[in-house]
Amino acid sequence: MKTQNPGGATDSLRATLLVSCRDRTGLVAALSDFVFRNGGNIIDADQHAELETGLFFMRLVWDLARFQLDRRGIDAGLADLERRFGLSFDLSYSDRRPRVAVFASRAPHCLYDLMLSHQLGELHGDLVLVVSNHDDLRPIAGHFGVRFEHVPVSADDKSPAESAQQALLRETDIDVVVLARYMQILSPAFVTSWSGRIINIHHSFLPAFVGARPYHQAKARGVKIIGATAHYVTSDLDQGPIIDQDVCRVSHRDEVSDLAQKGRELERQVLTRAVRLHLDRRVLISENRTIVFG
Amino acid sequence: MKTQNPGGATDSLRATLLVSCRDRTGLVAALSDFVFRNGGNIIDADQHAELETGLFFMRLVWDLARFQLDRRGIDAGLADLERRFGLSFDLSYSDRRPRVAVFASRAPHCLYDLMLSHQLGELHGDLVLVVSNHDDLRPIAGHFGVRFEHVPVSADDKSPAESAQQALLRETDIDVVVLARYMQILSPAFVTSWSGRIINIHHSFLPAFVGARPYHQAKARGVKIIGATAHYVTSDLDQGPIIDQDVCRVSHRDEVSDLAQKGRELERQVLTRAVRLHLDRRVLISENRTIVFG
Amino acid sequence: MKTQNPGGATDSLRATLLVSCRDRTGLVAALSDFVFRNGGNIIDADQHAELETGLFFMRLVWDLARFQLDRRGIDAGLADLERRFGLSFDLSYSDRRPRVAVFASRAPHCLYDLMLSHQLGELHGDLVLVVSNHDDLRPIAGHFGVRFEHVPVSADDKSPAESAQQALLRETDIDVVVLARYMQILSPAFVTSWSGRIINIHHSFLPAFVGARPYHQAKARGVKIIGATAHYVTSDLDQGPIIDQDVCRVSHRDEVSDLAQKGRELERQVLTRAVRLHLDRRVLISENRTIVFG
Amino acid sequence: MKTQNPGGATDSLRATLLVSCRDRTGLVAALSDFVFRNGGNIIDADQHAELETGLFFMRLVWDLARFQLDRRGIDAGLADLERRFGLSFDLSYSDRRPRVAVFASRAPHCLYDLMLSHQLGELHGDLVLVVSNHDDLRPIAGHFGVRFEHVPVSADDKSPAESAQQALLRETDIDVVVLARYMQILSPAFVTSWSGRIINIHHSFLPAFVGARPYHQAKARGVKIIGATAHYVTSDLDQGPIIDQDVCRVSHRDEVSDLAQKGRELERQVLTRAVRLHLDRRVLISENRTIVFG
Repeated sequence: MKTQNPGGATDSLRATLLVSCRDRTGLVAALSDFVFRNGGNIIDADQHAELETGLFFMRLVWDLARFQLDRRGIDAGLADLERRFGLSFDLSYSDRRPRVAVFASRAPHCLYDLMLSHQLGELHGDLVLVVSNHDDLRPIAGHFGVRFEHVPVSADDKSPAESAQQALLRETDIDVVVLARYMQILSPAFVTSWSGRIINIHHSFLPAFVGARPYHQAKARGVKIIGATAHYVTSDLDQGPIIDQDVCRVSHRDEVSDLAQKGRELERQVLTRAVRLHLDRRVLISENRTIVFG
Repeated sequence: MKTQNPGGATDSLRATLLVSCRDRTGLVAALSDFVFRNGGNIIDADQHAELETGLFFMRLVWDLARFQLDRRGIDAGLADLERRFGLSFDLSYSDRRPRVAVFASRAPHCLYDLMLSHQLGELHGDLVLVVSNHDDLRPIAGHFGVRFEHVPVSADDKSPAESAQQALLRETDIDVVVLARYMQILSPAFVTSWSGRIINIHHSFLPAFVGARPYHQAKARGVKIIGATAHYVTSDLDQGPIIDQDVCRVSHRDEVSDLAQKGRELERQVLTRAVRLHLDRRVLISENRTIVFG
Repeated sequence: MKTQNPGGATDSLRATLLVSCRDRTGLVAALSDFVFRNGGNIIDADQHAELETGLFFMRLVWDLARFQLDRRGIDAGLADLERRFGLSFDLSYSDRRPRVAVFASRAPHCLYDLMLSHQLGELHGDLVLVVSNHDDLRPIAGHFGVRFEHVPVSADDKSPAESAQQALLRETDIDVVVLARYMQILSPAFVTSWSGRIINIHHSFLPAFVGARPYHQAKARGVKIIGATAHYVTSDLDQGPIIDQDVCRVSHRDEVSDLAQKGRELERQVLTRAVRLHLDRRVLISENRTIVFG
Repeated sequence: MKTQNPGGATDSLRATLLVSCRDRTGLVAALSDFVFRNGGNIIDADQHAELETGLFFMRLVWDLARFQLDRRGIDAGLADLERRFGLSFDLSYSDRRPRVAVFASRAPHCLYDLMLSHQLGELHGDLVLVVSNHDDLRPIAGHFGVRFEHVPVSADDKSPAESAQQALLRETDIDVVVLARYMQILSPAFVTSWSGRIINIHHSFLPAFVGARPYHQAKARGVKIIGATAHYVTSDLDQGPIIDQDVCRVSHRDEVSDLAQKGRELERQVLTRAVRLHLDRRVLISENRTIVFG
């Protein structure tokens, strides 16, 4: 049975550690020594000390094949490092695949792209649930063999819908929620309970054209390049930490409908790429920015 | 009933004319005067005289709403211009949607992208047939409601398969064949009979890495950018007129499997874009090059 | 003596006509017939009717070698078309090279790029004057043999400086002013008197990060792509019609100084490209947008 | 006196270590422990173990402010690691700025770009010598205050020229030679003596269009994207390890002269970027590929 590894060709078991803290001497040595002393082989280490803020960020991936600590032992070791260096960390194992729910509305393009990427084995995670405020996309989930739940949202009171959504996410043991052109605004309470674990696609090159109808805005402003932005959702609309962006050239010949079509191409690429980066544990949130280990 | 127009927001009936010939004085005037005299309104005119070769290329789109000639009359008028100026032309009407067949093998990504683009109304044509030398992709065609035919190809003798394919193409009245990662080489006879009407996607930035396993070649050469190329198929493998290309950045961290994954993204984008350009009658073949009216 | 032509390999004499008006039947025919009847050969014709606004735009380039009208005759002919169709036009001849002034402050990169492009014969115009509010860049102008004028600007009252600048522009018979990282805001009166003829480079991907210190804003927002924008100057700061834009990828490893360095690369490319487009008569202003004939 | 640091905002003294060897457990720990035990603070650590080849690559930058070893001590420590792990390394200090010579012929654009980048403080090295087989570019070197030497090259016998060049490089204590559109082929002996220290710009997207007149080849093949490639020079023409590449879109409207102009933009950007990466010690050569630490 093949275990999908983040960017890996083999199926060895691996641990991935994301660390952030205030920079101080000895952090890299302490972390790599912890791996080495216990028999781990480091596959990938990427570290960055940000001079402007004095912050330290690191991503460390090691092979667990001959590692001498079990997971409890690893927890204890990291807790010790946490105390000594005041670091925050996020640890994951390649045999615990994150579980993903997709929220969508009527537009199918981002959902197809995620489903296809999953089917092709490109995502280090399992897409197990689609939730929608409409029933239109049910056949797509069905085609890919993924559970679909229609949760209508009332304009008057969104809380019943959100309660139902939360129950579904708990029931299916979801780790991350992807908003694939989901046209409802989530409540601050919902967002807070999934902090750093909701990924949205915005159909503009943020911070340009926040808000509604960005393609109309782009046409009116006469820009020569349009874009799309994947970001973590915060209670501050369109302001969350950016994970990835991409752009394409447009011209006066592009009507709003052409911008929308080019935009759809960007949206699905950027969203799927952002989800892949997140599932590969390559994204670290630091205040309102992300560190993306390439 | 909405007629999909090339890049158009409305559903008026239109004619699109592609012209190429040796350049001579009066061509633009004669062509636009032909439209005007007969009551047509020009929506889009794009002309280019190539100084290096002395060739003339033009794309002319006009509204037929109040046009005084019927189609027979238009044919007669163009035949007259053909005689006077020695021009070659290709004329199409927006109410005659081109019919598209997709040839695929086992890889689903390009097929999904074409199907989705069709479903979203982005293609000015009808995707009516999928032919494959394997049966794997049948459910995809089924999901999108498109006829699927499994035509196995024998390594010893491809002619029975090609006869079956030709019969299917005739039967379904196909205008253009799209090779969506179809892993069989078509015979020169087949290619000739569909000259200028078979579009292929090659998974490299041609002319770099012609032939097999371009991602392995790219990894070995250590390039920093990979690409994909959509081109018309000629009997000269990987040498046909290029319609579109695109690229993305890679690094030493990308293993061959990562290059393949990034490549799949490029392949589907570039192929779908090329098919869209072809169906919008924006591509004119001139010897071994294309003129793409943007 | 070689005459530099817009994008041309030969040195034949040409006329370039830019037209905009409300769309109506017969415009393309009338314009191309005007050229043809008088013996001109059309080199390039690019026309676009914008369905959403009902506007018509066209760029027409023709060879004057055997044209039967002299310039007075051409003026008369166009005046006639102007009356019949209510069109606005801009006519230029390839033997009348536009004269360019560059306004700069202390940053040399955009000035070098323009000067080099000019020296290499890439600009269809003559760069004849550099005006600066500092004296630092004088040696660059000297190296390229271009007149340099130091016009200090007082924070209290900019009008004496602007009067001096206007006098210089008149004296040197300037057609277009390029702000190459010129760090002074021009008065509405100045801008109005050069309407559609001042090109500025803004160091962000407008409309993102208007105002000051865009690289600091970009760093704070954590964007993954930065850009630069060349636009015509209007009295509404950073809001004028966009001519060209470009972008490049950045990461968390880029400090503000790195963003500034990558930005300098973008700024010079985009500004020089915009100036080249303008001098090639490829840019038509329509309200607050541009039509750029590619 | 400010010391220019690789990508750094401050002027602290730093060491940069590039390591490659066969991968084995404990490498990262041993290297980072070496820095930590001796009081160094790691600024940047980027490591990659390549599964396909079993090779290990690392770039390590640390602050020397409170480092307890002097340079002799560092040499001894690294020699010890070299023995234990069989690693190859390249060590450099931020106060020893590499010295750069530029070889050019008649085309000025790449030379200007390098000179300007140097003047703006963007290069972590000193551009101290320009060598040319023509005298045309002397004024550019003079303008930037850099020594210029005209070394004519005879088609019959290049060895006197190469002897003179070698003498100049020795005399000026050069570390790296940049071929900025230098139109002479260097002898294998010359190339070998500067192995891994000659950077060339090739005006195509290698491996497409090797050899002469790539823009003519690109036009004939009808590609939609052209590129430029910076690479280390080996005795195998156009086959050396690629450092960086970039591309831009072209169309049928671009004549060969337009391709050349767009190409010049790419050439200078890519070459200057490659030189910057090399001087920042971000490039490690592994057989015929490079590892570029981003």
